[in-house]
Amino acid sequence: MEKKKNISMAVIKRLPKYHRYLKELMKNDVDRISSKELSEKIGFTASQIRQDLNCFGDFGQQGYGYNVNELYNQISNILGLTKPYKTIIIGAGNIGQAIANYTDFEKIGFNLEAMFDINPKLIGIRIRDIEIMDIDYLGDYLRENQVDIGVICTPNNNGQKVCDILVRNGVKGIWNFAPVDLVVPEDVKVENVHLSDSLLTLTCLLNDD
Amino acid sequence: MEKKKNISMAVIKRLPKYHRYLKELMKNDVDRISSKELSEKIGFTASQIRQDLNCFGDFGQQGYGYNVNELYNQISNILGLTKPYKTIIIGAGNIGQAIANYTDFEKIGFNLEAMFDINPKLIGIRIRDIEIMDIDYLGDYLRENQVDIGVICTPNNNGQKVCDILVRNGVKGIWNFAPVDLVVPEDVKVENVHLSDSLLTLTCLLNDD
Repeated sequence: MEKKKNISMAVIKRLPKYHRYLKELMKNDVDRISSKELSEKIGFTASQIRQDLNCFGDFGQQGYGYNVNELYNQISNILGLTKPYKTIIIGAGNIGQAIANYTDFEKIGFNLEAMFDINPKLIGIRIRDIEIMDIDYLGDYLRENQVDIGVICTPNNNGQKVCDILVRNGVKGIWNFAPVDLVVPEDVKVENVHLSDSLLTLTCLLNDD
Repeated sequence: MEKKKNISMAVIKRLPKYHRYLKELMKNDVDRISSKELSEKIGFTASQIRQDLNCFGDFGQQGYGYNVNELYNQISNILGLTKPYKTIIIGAGNIGQAIANYTDFEKIGFNLEAMFDINPKLIGIRIRDIEIMDIDYLGDYLRENQVDIGVICTPNNNGQKVCDILVRNGVKGIWNFAPVDLVVPEDVKVENVHLSDSLLTLTCLLNDD
């Protein structure tokens, strides 16, 4: 089945959730599920689900529901989980080390190849099998090694600088934990995890009654 | 100025970004800014900005722009940053420890009071000044101590169980890092940081060309 291109951002944001629920269903040996049953589990409406899944192919059989395994594989495919991603982490502080130690990411093909930091106390330390390198070598490393995803875990004021080095050396995927909105060319994809923004969203909700 | 209630979720999600940019402007001694200038910095349209800021009061003066300091204080107020939040972390693995060590959160009133884990190897260890306690004591702790925010950093299968204990003992704010969609009563607010979902969004974007 040919993958449809240019799925809307709203659908892309929902796909990981489908993926998570379908994995759970497979674990529980569920073979088939109707959009109505899936809707009860996942919290999207049945018509939303049918619309989303129609975006990238013709799955469900009227009256038979979705083949869980087939749908899971197709969504894995659209999510790009059929190949590994060479990944480096820049900024080996708390968050950087937590990401490096999070072995669940490896299972989805996220292969950590190198870590960099500016702090002499961290340079040379090994996190799992990876030795933290001096950030001064980042450019050289990138010229010698193809990297798919750069994870930026530096403080605010260095985020854009690090990003520019990554982009200049051909890295196309940036997972950004720095509390800054990065400026990148159109062919570079950025996904942000702004922890402070998330915490402030929560405090705002707690005060909005 | 009276705070307006029931701001839409879309506006709430943008507020932390306004807060971040206004703080930056204050640091650079900028006193006034027009919606047009703010738009160029922050990336929302000027009319979007005027509409958002109108949601919670009458700020900008036609032709004079916004008073940066006043707007920052008002947004801090709406974000609930005028008081401290007693916080506990459940799950003291990589992410839990990273959050505990992230001192930036303290500056916005997020006071870490306790940490809990199920792992005997972690119980008794101190992260900064906080001793990690056995998760079996979570209920007792909550009955004796008022807690505003529970940060759930446990694996998937324990997330809902921990959440239920928090909710049963009156915790109204949940910052959830577990890869699960929590079920809570309406008066409990949940903000999710689903790291795997975020990473899958990035791989999807990298494959959507």
